Amino acid sequence: MATKKMILDLDTGVDDALALAYAVADPNVDLIGIISSYGNTLVETAAQNSLNLLHLLGADDVPVFIGARHSSTTNQFEVMPISQMIHGKNGVGDVILEQSPRAVEKQSAVDFLIEAAHQYQENLIFIPTGPLTNLAAAIKKDSKVATLIGNTTLMGGALTVPGNVTPFTEANIHQDPEAADFAFTHQKNLTMVGLDVTLRTLLTKKETADWRLLNTKAGKVFADLMDFYIDAYDHLNINKNGAALHDPLAVAVGIDPSYVTTLPLAMHVTYNQENGDYGRTIGDKERLLEPTTSKVAVLVDAKRFVNDFQNLMLSVLK
Amino acid sequence: MATKKMILDLDTGVDDALALAYAVADPNVDLIGIISSYGNTLVETAAQNSLNLLHLLGADDVPVFIGARHSSTTNQFEVMPISQMIHGKNGVGDVILEQSPRAVEKQSAVDFLIEAAHQYQENLIFIPTGPLTNLAAAIKKDSKVATLIGNTTLMGGALTVPGNVTPFTEANIHQDPEAADFAFTHQKNLTMVGLDVTLRTLLTKKETADWRLLNTKAGKVFADLMDFYIDAYDHLNINKNGAALHDPLAVAVGIDPSYVTTLPLAMHVTYNQENGDYGRTIGDKERLLEPTTSKVAVLVDAKRFVNDFQNLMLSVLK
Repeated sequence: MATKKMILDLDTGVDDALALAYAVADPNVDLIGIISSYGNTLVETAAQNSLNLLHLLGADDVPVFIGARHSSTTNQFEVMPISQMIHGKNGVGDVILEQSPRAVEKQSAVDFLIEAAHQYQENLIFIPTGPLTNLAAAIKKDSKVATLIGNTTLMGGALTVPGNVTPFTEANIHQDPEAADFAFTHQKNLTMVGLDVTLRTLLTKKETADWRLLNTKAGKVFADLMDFYIDAYDHLNINKNGAALHDPLAVAVGIDPSYVTTLPLAMHVTYNQENGDYGRTIGDKERLLEPTTSKVAVLVDAKRFVNDFQNLMLSVLK
Repeated sequence: MATKKMILDLDTGVDDALALAYAVADPNVDLIGIISSYGNTLVETAAQNSLNLLHLLGADDVPVFIGARHSSTTNQFEVMPISQMIHGKNGVGDVILEQSPRAVEKQSAVDFLIEAAHQYQENLIFIPTGPLTNLAAAIKKDSKVATLIGNTTLMGGALTVPGNVTPFTEANIHQDPEAADFAFTHQKNLTMVGLDVTLRTLLTKKETADWRLLNTKAGKVFADLMDFYIDAYDHLNINKNGAALHDPLAVAVGIDPSYVTTLPLAMHVTYNQENGDYGRTIGDKERLLEPTTSKVAVLVDAKRFVNDFQNLMLSVLK
């Protein structure tokens, strides 16, 4: 079996940093590129963070591309204060990363994604962990993207639990509900890994203490940035028992779907401001009786995932 | 194996009438009583409809009890115009039923439910197909009800699809969200059969035509009331492909859970008017990591159910 190729779409971001490390560490997947998105940080910051983290992990062969600077319905983007409180002003828990010797690629993120979709097709795993602006733009530019990519597993949305921005919407979806709706209603073989499952996968300072014990630069940096995130979860009363492994769970499920139980469901994203349910990921009544290739993760084997995550982290931070 | 005992809590209602017929027809269950609720009709109308329908089906041994006249937070109840459009002004599609020779029981619905819970315990199946006002009142009067009843399978709510009153709430839950929240957070072994699955089980005039062909009084009456309901679904643009078998599906699942795929989920019902999500049935973030005996039906073998439903109806309408 050919090794699967993976592209990450990150708004890097503390848990994006963990997702990046997971993808670098997992031998079952070949990380061929990282697309950047606005979201937890500005897109340029996200790209630079990804470059610096790849350098820290000795993965200087993975190219990084600049994606959308703002949502599909706005002309600019500012990082929300709450994002800065969770991810730090620089996106990586205010930890100063060593500058990568590399620069971002000249090709646009959307063109890279389209090219890879044609090249790798069913062997391509695409993992967006931020807004779905880049994916929607790629499908709009080349509609074949919707059917070519073998597996799109996104972190975002909330179906069976409330959102984390409003009772209806999750942060990634909230950034660009129109792009999300376009992706949800066009992209085939889409799996949503939302708050339904990610809120059940918690990491604590017990695990990051073990990263520190490795006595490596990478171990210290990742422990520092993750501890910032765990502290934010505590201070902001998000969760006092640990911080959710949102983005790395999407990577894990993209590689091994057996971490979660999924529900087949044709979904859409609401974006009418007037109905009070802006940015809700919900089953589409009109397509309830039709077959669908969309799935929603509704249960997770959290113990197995957190254990495997920790082992991969210990291997890549060594 | 002792035959399971069943109590229905009906706001009779066209699809409640089908649920009643299903429970009378199924040899795997012994229908020991019907509780009445306000909802599709006034409670007195619901009780009289149940008595008349039992008489029509030759089930004059099943007692009928009067339950709550209005929600737990109001002092009165008026039938909503939309309910009258769907179920007719008399609740049974404006079909005139022959009057039952019997009257309702003197014992209150709540006391009957409490007594039966103690008597039959794990062998009792309780099926509320209207507001959860009676169940909440029973638990409040005798907290043991919450653990004694072996199986509570309710028709109501919407988790993975929008509601049918607002984008967030389903009609039965909407009648009394506070009682529903109390029931959802207290009653053990609760299964929610909501719009997620009932909207996928459609009956058409093809099936009711076969009821008519039986050339029986019961066949004609049930075909007339169901055709009224199918026409309402069509006129009101609810569904032009048939009418949802909401309430009978709950009865079927109460008897044979294998009709549906369920998701274990600790849920609550929101009833804060200010948050814009009044009457929403949703996972409870605070109990996400705790074990639960609550389940939500998220997939249904609609073909098998509609087929079995039709066979039972043909047997009971003969």
